[in-house]
Amino acid sequence: MRLGEIAQVLGCRVIGDDSVTIKGVAEIHSAGPGQITFLTNPKYRKFLKSTKASAVLVGEPIEGLELPQLVCKEPYVAFAKLLDLFNPETLPAPGVSDSAHICEGVEIGKDCYIGPNVYIGEGTVIGREVYLFPGVYVGRNCRIGDGTVLFPGVKIYDRVKIGRAVRIHAGAVVGSDGFGYAFSKEEKKIYKIPQTGGVVIEDLVEIGANTTIDRGTIGDTVIGEGTKIDNLVQIGHNVKIGRYCFIVSQVGISGSTKIGDFVTLAGKVGVAGHIEIASNVTVAAKAGITKSIKEPGTYAGFPARPYKEWRRIQALVDRLPELYQKIKELARVIKR
Amino acid sequence: MRLGEIAQVLGCRVIGDDSVTIKGVAEIHSAGPGQITFLTNPKYRKFLKSTKASAVLVGEPIEGLELPQLVCKEPYVAFAKLLDLFNPETLPAPGVSDSAHICEGVEIGKDCYIGPNVYIGEGTVIGREVYLFPGVYVGRNCRIGDGTVLFPGVKIYDRVKIGRAVRIHAGAVVGSDGFGYAFSKEEKKIYKIPQTGGVVIEDLVEIGANTTIDRGTIGDTVIGEGTKIDNLVQIGHNVKIGRYCFIVSQVGISGSTKIGDFVTLAGKVGVAGHIEIASNVTVAAKAGITKSIKEPGTYAGFPARPYKEWRRIQALVDRLPELYQKIKELARVIKR
Amino acid sequence: MRLGEIAQVLGCRVIGDDSVTIKGVAEIHSAGPGQITFLTNPKYRKFLKSTKASAVLVGEPIEGLELPQLVCKEPYVAFAKLLDLFNPETLPAPGVSDSAHICEGVEIGKDCYIGPNVYIGEGTVIGREVYLFPGVYVGRNCRIGDGTVLFPGVKIYDRVKIGRAVRIHAGAVVGSDGFGYAFSKEEKKIYKIPQTGGVVIEDLVEIGANTTIDRGTIGDTVIGEGTKIDNLVQIGHNVKIGRYCFIVSQVGISGSTKIGDFVTLAGKVGVAGHIEIASNVTVAAKAGITKSIKEPGTYAGFPARPYKEWRRIQALVDRLPELYQKIKELARVIKR
Repeated sequence: MRLGEIAQVLGCRVIGDDSVTIKGVAEIHSAGPGQITFLTNPKYRKFLKSTKASAVLVGEPIEGLELPQLVCKEPYVAFAKLLDLFNPETLPAPGVSDSAHICEGVEIGKDCYIGPNVYIGEGTVIGREVYLFPGVYVGRNCRIGDGTVLFPGVKIYDRVKIGRAVRIHAGAVVGSDGFGYAFSKEEKKIYKIPQTGGVVIEDLVEIGANTTIDRGTIGDTVIGEGTKIDNLVQIGHNVKIGRYCFIVSQVGISGSTKIGDFVTLAGKVGVAGHIEIASNVTVAAKAGITKSIKEPGTYAGFPARPYKEWRRIQALVDRLPELYQKIKELARVIKR
Repeated sequence: MRLGEIAQVLGCRVIGDDSVTIKGVAEIHSAGPGQITFLTNPKYRKFLKSTKASAVLVGEPIEGLELPQLVCKEPYVAFAKLLDLFNPETLPAPGVSDSAHICEGVEIGKDCYIGPNVYIGEGTVIGREVYLFPGVYVGRNCRIGDGTVLFPGVKIYDRVKIGRAVRIHAGAVVGSDGFGYAFSKEEKKIYKIPQTGGVVIEDLVEIGANTTIDRGTIGDTVIGEGTKIDNLVQIGHNVKIGRYCFIVSQVGISGSTKIGDFVTLAGKVGVAGHIEIASNVTVAAKAGITKSIKEPGTYAGFPARPYKEWRRIQALVDRLPELYQKIKELARVIKR
Repeated sequence: MRLGEIAQVLGCRVIGDDSVTIKGVAEIHSAGPGQITFLTNPKYRKFLKSTKASAVLVGEPIEGLELPQLVCKEPYVAFAKLLDLFNPETLPAPGVSDSAHICEGVEIGKDCYIGPNVYIGEGTVIGREVYLFPGVYVGRNCRIGDGTVLFPGVKIYDRVKIGRAVRIHAGAVVGSDGFGYAFSKEEKKIYKIPQTGGVVIEDLVEIGANTTIDRGTIGDTVIGEGTKIDNLVQIGHNVKIGRYCFIVSQVGISGSTKIGDFVTLAGKVGVAGHIEIASNVTVAAKAGITKSIKEPGTYAGFPARPYKEWRRIQALVDRLPELYQKIKELARVIKR
């Protein structure tokens, strides 16, 4: 594909020779002739001089650069489209494997791939162009929407509803029992709280590898439309996550907590149970949210607080040795 | 079922009309006519006025409430029983799937469900009414007690002993190698420490989805009777956990650590190796336990310390900006 | 085996009776006659007097001990060899299961074990003496080197290259999509960044149960030779880990970060994306690394800093109550 054609497809413009042929995309330090590279993170700018790429995707024109530039207003979005153009995902051909175990009353739509050793429980309804990779387990009375992909070994318990164009990565578990027990002092006995609710995964959600999402105790655990969840995340029973949130790896959200729309929880954040987080909140990595957050903004620390406040306190913690020194001096001066 | 009958089964009393018919249990804000709701967390009391439920389960009678009340001394225990009454778990019918792979010398008790694509290794003995869901793997020379349920895709390595009425959720791994290596300076080589011990899971234990429990190096890793472990927890080699502990999601316990009875470790707690935690200890979320805890009580922070102490220090950390201000003023006054 | 023979095999010397027969290895407090025990951690020295073992492996001779001693310069290495001597791992006999699903163009070397319900995708090449336990999934165009073991339910996505003598534990996922999305303000739409790269796992690597390693966006995620990764670890896209590192349980490493050789990250450490960690760095448990570490050494805390610095600050945090007291006093004195 010529660079000019790519520019047309992506809605960008070219600075330099637009007739150069591009066969693939590569990282700036490893790209060779015939490849286009990209500069979405300024950290990698130093490699621009030495790159052997035939073109570079940029957000702003770079002056004095010989290399042809593909200038895109939203370079990261253009990068996504560029990758899709040269490396479209190749999913398996439709068909139902002989070794798939499909129970009674299961409905499967057109053009689905049901791989080897897949299990689909009674009464489950599967839409069109659904991909169930080898070893996927889907329990009873589930619903899986059109175009959804469950990667190898995903386990879906009974009565889970999954929307359209959802992607769930290998080893993820949806619908396991929430963690609830009642201790009877009278009987000196622990009772398990039956976990009788379900899980609703709305359209366009992506769920990472080995992530776990518990079913509701009663009522549903809900993951809102377009929300993206990374690997090894724990979502407790009856949690409600809104639309277009980003939940980064190893986050844990305790039971019955409600999260708004466009919320980002960075890696390893912990969230207490039975609280609410407003829409448009961003929480920095490793923070611990112990009570409801009502205002949009950026938060950090444990217990979590507004980011600026946390920075100020953190800076003072770092200066504690100096502070102790100061106090010693003051004490000495006073004694004199 | 009439409310009066429910009261009899649960050993509670009714305030108001005990003839109302109850068909199910629902959350307070979503309950409709014919459903009973519950008030076990005071946060939800505000919904009492507007709920459309036909009755409410409470711990103490609420005055001036028209809604029939089911008053139970231990409302959370009653709630567990109530859910069980209306939503009993429906496990698969007994039977051994054709596609299960059962090796030589395996013994399987009466009334077991052995699902599709289950693998059971040589010499393993399985009790009565055991449920092995599709894709479960059980290695060689294991023992699984009566009434135990292994959900889809659970992996049990060789020589693991599991008691009665144990529940292990999807994707959990029991008996993987502990993390042990020896570095030889002389040979400039890393040796793997062979992990030759086993794992013992006692009766009534529940283990969450994608949790991992390593086998002992020599001797066993032990999870005591009635202990409940949440999702994505890591238990290192040779750890011994006592009876009726609660280990919440994303906790990590390092090798050879010994934990007493009735211990609660809240979410994301980390525990160092080769230490001991006394019985009746509770540790707050995100704490890091770096040395043995000998006294019962509540602990928090990193390094973990008695909760009150942690609170005091934490409060002072929050006041650091004020403290710095104070010191500045003192310095100014002295200089004058 | 006589103690003298063991000493010869291990290159150690005996103090005391070298004719005693040893049949196995056991922990110091549970060992019985005919067993050898070991003292690699001084914490367990107190059990030496009461042990019923027939011999003990030590690093330095212990005076006044009647028990025959196997004195080894590197006792932990000798312990590894001792365990291997008495408890060699017994892997399944070679053979390909009837229920394995092997796609076209797959090459499998000599003496492999391909267990029940294993799936191997098109074009994948598997070396000699490779063990694929039941339920393992390997995607298309992968390469697996000689002597590698994939335990039950391991999932390998397409185009992953695994070296020789690698061990990957149950439930681990290699090659899942990295977490990358681009938000278009113009289109008000989230684009998934296609994850088109691969993963390279070099020789002698061990990966723990339910650990997840994402594929590169473009270019590869790389785990260097001999690196050992524990359970439930998250490795982001395009991360490069060097040789002979130890990555302990529940660590999370964000995308594009580069880690040197001989690096140890203790339990629950979090590492930010797009940074570099020098070789020979050790990071204490629960630390959070927010920027590049350029000097070898030990680091701790969040944000991570040199260990000694962290200790000093941490000690002062603990003394905050005392500090506040001091300031109050000073203020009182000054006012007088």
